[in-house]
Amino acid sequence: MSEPLTIGMLGYRFMGKAHSNALARLPMFFPDAPAVERHTLIGRDEDALADAADRFGFSHTATDWAAVIDEVDVFYNLGPNHLHAEPSIAALEAGTPVLCEKPLAPTLEAAEAMRDAAAAADVPAGCAFNYRFVPAIQYAKRLIESGDLGEIHHVRGRYLQDWLVDPDAEWAWRMDADLAGSGALGDLGAHTVDLVRFLVGEQAGDIERVSGHLQTFVDERPVYDDEGTVEEHRPVTVDDAYSAQAEFANGAVGTFEASRFATGHKNDHTIEIHGSEGGLKFSLERLNELEVLTGESRGYETVLVTDETDPYVDHWWPPGHVVGWEHTFVHENFEFLSAVDAGEEFSPSFDEAYRVQEVLDAIERSDDRGAWVDVA
Amino acid sequence: MSEPLTIGMLGYRFMGKAHSNALARLPMFFPDAPAVERHTLIGRDEDALADAADRFGFSHTATDWAAVIDEVDVFYNLGPNHLHAEPSIAALEAGTPVLCEKPLAPTLEAAEAMRDAAAAADVPAGCAFNYRFVPAIQYAKRLIESGDLGEIHHVRGRYLQDWLVDPDAEWAWRMDADLAGSGALGDLGAHTVDLVRFLVGEQAGDIERVSGHLQTFVDERPVYDDEGTVEEHRPVTVDDAYSAQAEFANGAVGTFEASRFATGHKNDHTIEIHGSEGGLKFSLERLNELEVLTGESRGYETVLVTDETDPYVDHWWPPGHVVGWEHTFVHENFEFLSAVDAGEEFSPSFDEAYRVQEVLDAIERSDDRGAWVDVA
Amino acid sequence: MSEPLTIGMLGYRFMGKAHSNALARLPMFFPDAPAVERHTLIGRDEDALADAADRFGFSHTATDWAAVIDEVDVFYNLGPNHLHAEPSIAALEAGTPVLCEKPLAPTLEAAEAMRDAAAAADVPAGCAFNYRFVPAIQYAKRLIESGDLGEIHHVRGRYLQDWLVDPDAEWAWRMDADLAGSGALGDLGAHTVDLVRFLVGEQAGDIERVSGHLQTFVDERPVYDDEGTVEEHRPVTVDDAYSAQAEFANGAVGTFEASRFATGHKNDHTIEIHGSEGGLKFSLERLNELEVLTGESRGYETVLVTDETDPYVDHWWPPGHVVGWEHTFVHENFEFLSAVDAGEEFSPSFDEAYRVQEVLDAIERSDDRGAWVDVA
Amino acid sequence: MSEPLTIGMLGYRFMGKAHSNALARLPMFFPDAPAVERHTLIGRDEDALADAADRFGFSHTATDWAAVIDEVDVFYNLGPNHLHAEPSIAALEAGTPVLCEKPLAPTLEAAEAMRDAAAAADVPAGCAFNYRFVPAIQYAKRLIESGDLGEIHHVRGRYLQDWLVDPDAEWAWRMDADLAGSGALGDLGAHTVDLVRFLVGEQAGDIERVSGHLQTFVDERPVYDDEGTVEEHRPVTVDDAYSAQAEFANGAVGTFEASRFATGHKNDHTIEIHGSEGGLKFSLERLNELEVLTGESRGYETVLVTDETDPYVDHWWPPGHVVGWEHTFVHENFEFLSAVDAGEEFSPSFDEAYRVQEVLDAIERSDDRGAWVDVA
Repeated sequence: MSEPLTIGMLGYRFMGKAHSNALARLPMFFPDAPAVERHTLIGRDEDALADAADRFGFSHTATDWAAVIDEVDVFYNLGPNHLHAEPSIAALEAGTPVLCEKPLAPTLEAAEAMRDAAAAADVPAGCAFNYRFVPAIQYAKRLIESGDLGEIHHVRGRYLQDWLVDPDAEWAWRMDADLAGSGALGDLGAHTVDLVRFLVGEQAGDIERVSGHLQTFVDERPVYDDEGTVEEHRPVTVDDAYSAQAEFANGAVGTFEASRFATGHKNDHTIEIHGSEGGLKFSLERLNELEVLTGESRGYETVLVTDETDPYVDHWWPPGHVVGWEHTFVHENFEFLSAVDAGEEFSPSFDEAYRVQEVLDAIERSDDRGAWVDVA
Repeated sequence: MSEPLTIGMLGYRFMGKAHSNALARLPMFFPDAPAVERHTLIGRDEDALADAADRFGFSHTATDWAAVIDEVDVFYNLGPNHLHAEPSIAALEAGTPVLCEKPLAPTLEAAEAMRDAAAAADVPAGCAFNYRFVPAIQYAKRLIESGDLGEIHHVRGRYLQDWLVDPDAEWAWRMDADLAGSGALGDLGAHTVDLVRFLVGEQAGDIERVSGHLQTFVDERPVYDDEGTVEEHRPVTVDDAYSAQAEFANGAVGTFEASRFATGHKNDHTIEIHGSEGGLKFSLERLNELEVLTGESRGYETVLVTDETDPYVDHWWPPGHVVGWEHTFVHENFEFLSAVDAGEEFSPSFDEAYRVQEVLDAIERSDDRGAWVDVA
Repeated sequence: MSEPLTIGMLGYRFMGKAHSNALARLPMFFPDAPAVERHTLIGRDEDALADAADRFGFSHTATDWAAVIDEVDVFYNLGPNHLHAEPSIAALEAGTPVLCEKPLAPTLEAAEAMRDAAAAADVPAGCAFNYRFVPAIQYAKRLIESGDLGEIHHVRGRYLQDWLVDPDAEWAWRMDADLAGSGALGDLGAHTVDLVRFLVGEQAGDIERVSGHLQTFVDERPVYDDEGTVEEHRPVTVDDAYSAQAEFANGAVGTFEASRFATGHKNDHTIEIHGSEGGLKFSLERLNELEVLTGESRGYETVLVTDETDPYVDHWWPPGHVVGWEHTFVHENFEFLSAVDAGEEFSPSFDEAYRVQEVLDAIERSDDRGAWVDVA
Repeated sequence: MSEPLTIGMLGYRFMGKAHSNALARLPMFFPDAPAVERHTLIGRDEDALADAADRFGFSHTATDWAAVIDEVDVFYNLGPNHLHAEPSIAALEAGTPVLCEKPLAPTLEAAEAMRDAAAAADVPAGCAFNYRFVPAIQYAKRLIESGDLGEIHHVRGRYLQDWLVDPDAEWAWRMDADLAGSGALGDLGAHTVDLVRFLVGEQAGDIERVSGHLQTFVDERPVYDDEGTVEEHRPVTVDDAYSAQAEFANGAVGTFEASRFATGHKNDHTIEIHGSEGGLKFSLERLNELEVLTGESRGYETVLVTDETDPYVDHWWPPGHVVGWEHTFVHENFEFLSAVDAGEEFSPSFDEAYRVQEVLDAIERSDDRGAWVDVA
């Protein structure tokens, strides 16, 4: 047995926890996955970092990513968006495989630099679009690839949350254009565009043209001190919601939307596709299910995608024993680390994530110009 | 008791049947409705017309609408779209109240002429947007008016059908630009825009700007002879599907869509609204229900809008005894005929229908130009 | 054209309205139905009766059913349960066809007498189990008959209402054992047992044994005067809810339940059937839909039973234009009057309704004895 | 920091995997949980056992449970039902806390002995009814305890699977009365009865009387050799499905059912409760949701039970990030090990599990006698 792959991980909050958990669970459920060692956790706040390292099972910590990237076998970049480019590029230049959280970068320029760095490296550079790894999404992909939906006519994607509908909700880095790039568009829309490209990219072709609309409902947000008193207000410089229309190469019509103001929706990412022979519908809040219309069926059938023959399911539990959101990270890490171990490509790659970024950028350009724009 | 109002009705197919049925049912369920006499049914094919008149309870038939419009008390214009303007205007000029099917006209110019004729007349001129008269929609209107949804942020409307997804489906007048004006946009989108204006028009204000997209997936369609052999192919000169983004006066974000290619959907008109305090969702295929989020609720509540206190319901059956699509016509005819009898305004008026047409026209203009356009 | 069939109708409240409406609608939608004349409406309160006759389109009224039954061509018995037997039997003895509301009678003895009277007559005697005539139920019947569900293993039926959950809800004849026979069992359970027998009677055979449970949660109810003051309390001598287990001839397992205390349910009659090859689910509150599992499907498919090829639908509207509760009465009246006109059998007959009553009676006997009992 | 609790675990298949995973996940998500060491895995097949120990993170294996029970700090009994009593009792007699899988035992006698052993021990003896630890179920419990549902009138529980609907499905120990006790009743019904007692036990009181029905649809099943050829047929001596009616101390009506023949259902455990003030509905296949009717609501509200304030959720992910079936085991193990560590009671205890067994036994007795029987 070979040495375990050592992991350096930048970021120890939400995504740090999600990926650490995934790494911890691989041996029991994916015995074929390469062995890994959670080696160094990277962050700025040493106390919080030490605490997280202890909890997440890392043996070392570091406050300087530059010192880590060539000391580990794999680099996970889970920091905020404005920290995606520099460390990822440096790691790739050091020959270290990178898994970077989405969206790839806050700007198309930064994303381009990352894509070029990945092209120049001969190690995998992956972008962590985890929703590709929902069993029901992989099952949907199989259906589409096998032609069960026929020619694709309609693609609909929307991602609804409501955590900002209260104007007193606190300011955060995700609301700052310099730190985040964009708002709902980059945070949520990136997932939608990636899933859509993944699912119908081969059948419907590229998204060629878009018309976009970004809206900010609340222009500034409070920052609270420890007693809950408002210390100051900071400007919201990103979108609270976006919508877009899209035209695919084959003429299919796309409509996309995301919001942080969609009252009553917590994490509701839905994808609907209509083809000449069938259709399907997916909702992240019911991620074990896929609604499917194919063949001679008259209505949509609710498929519980938990059978042994369903993607990844044989690794887990018997039929009907549902999995959760976090399982997508286990599957994603399995695929990424297997690619690293085998020296193969990982998909979604930086190049694919760049293509997503092109669409997001086109939506922003369209919003600026008040006109349809070409994506590339 | 006064004399019954005599009705002259142009059109004896789908809409003729729906309105005749509504007229026939009023006495039993809406005893306060003015009495009517189904007097003259108007059409071109004398045999089919005689048969329909017999079935629909009309005592006379006529092939020339011009000879009827000043002989009856009320004129129903249920003909194809290109026949909306001339007879309706002539009737109004003769002082005869008009109920005209939607969309008001195939072109904005024709709609404008109709609106002006209505303004010059002092009798009601109504456009038959029947979905306003679904009890659940009226109930939704009450909730919005009472402020239960707060400030409106998102409005989503889509109308999905699939009757054209088969490329061998027969050509019909609805696919011809001269006869129908537009396709899914005018036929289905008109309903969506009217409902949206009805529901949130006061809270969100007018739709000020739109970006539109029209798509035709199948460019020509067969015409079959009686044996089912293809006689010829005729061009499809309208849209099979449209999508649109909209901005309301208050900044609310709208997304609209309709298709005749949405596999597995028969008559699925859905409206979703998110406000700062709540939200609601409606689907025409489950028209007795409204999903509602208000107050302290955590999730959407499925309200069966069939209680005695619900709009129109006390006229029908006890709680839980659901009504159907056709009941919307009974309610609509009750309101229209009551307005005629009382000499009052009827809403939706030609003016309101013109405002809908402005939005549809703006969507078409936007599609032509590839740019956002102002509605008015 | 022959003379219209004259109808004498006993009862002018809820069911009187439902059947009168059905009769009124037949000519427009079922042109093949025999012509009828709403002739005599029968009741006790002359003022209310006159008013109802006017509204329901009857030309005569009468306070003595005995004087009517041999003067009309068809007798509709829509009175309270304790008035089902005597007038129906008298009518049949006079050679007048009878359509009687359900349940057939308050006691098995009365039902037996009615069945025998029907057997001795050579005119149709029908029991108005209207839910058989829901298009989705007829469609379900087709599926089961064609073998699509295979061998039947499970049948589940429940009928949930909540109009008595408030202990201050007013006393009514439906809560009195002498007038109504039983409570939820006879009023709601009769529908369930009839539907189940209709749907699986041929495949699963008869219900051979049952175990029943009746429960009354509130023992007495107020009677209010016109000012809403409680005048007196009257005892509730019927069940508020029942449950039952059943064994079919083929070994299939049945579970039935009904309640007037099922908070949040208005008129929720659900039927679920599992066979070796498939399954189906129906809910009366969404009566245009049927959930179906057959063949290679993995999950239940939601079929909107509104296509032209679906039972009765071609008489109404295009696909996706949903019908309501009342349409079941139109279909039922069409079938019954067609049978009268043709001198043929009508199903459900008094004999079938008696068989339902046997099951209800067995449930009551089982509850009394605390033991399983044989149905016949 | 104290020494970790050493775990000895009997059983290394489905339940062994579920509990091992739970133990492995505690440190990252429940830092307050006592530390544990997966010490000895116990089974008969040494090769399979070694492989499982490696995968599940156990450092030792043993083939004789008797040699382990007093060498470890905690004993997990996850073996088949007929192995529940002897090792669990021996462990308790040795002063070792026990967590035993459900149902407690194949017979009431064995369950009684286990209950008595637990009463005599002063260490926790828990039965692993994991569905109590679904966040939505704990949330439901809170609602009921706070009186939001009022007086309980109806309780409905059913557990539907379909893995035996194919008569060629292979024989397994779960189909043998000696090894399993009963079939669907003990395997699935035990969960239902425990959940029902947990949720409404205080409000509705004990289940006092039941009427039960057990049915076996397929009397024998094939055993296949490695090539898939039928070697022999073995008799099925347990029920494929059961149904039951129940009466609670307060008069509430219960109906229970489970089946392994419910086509199209994989692991569909539903609980529905109606009270005088509200109601709720739960389905295991959508375990992150609870349908709730309370207060002034008109219809059931779909609550996504994933907020920070919901039970256990703050240990996991942000709102809307759903958990899976396996998380119930993490919660259960957290509670059990915390109780062990603190020397406190754990619920569900052997005594509570015995009370469940009493109900199951009464259902069997009722089925034998064809009569209602008292539970205790």
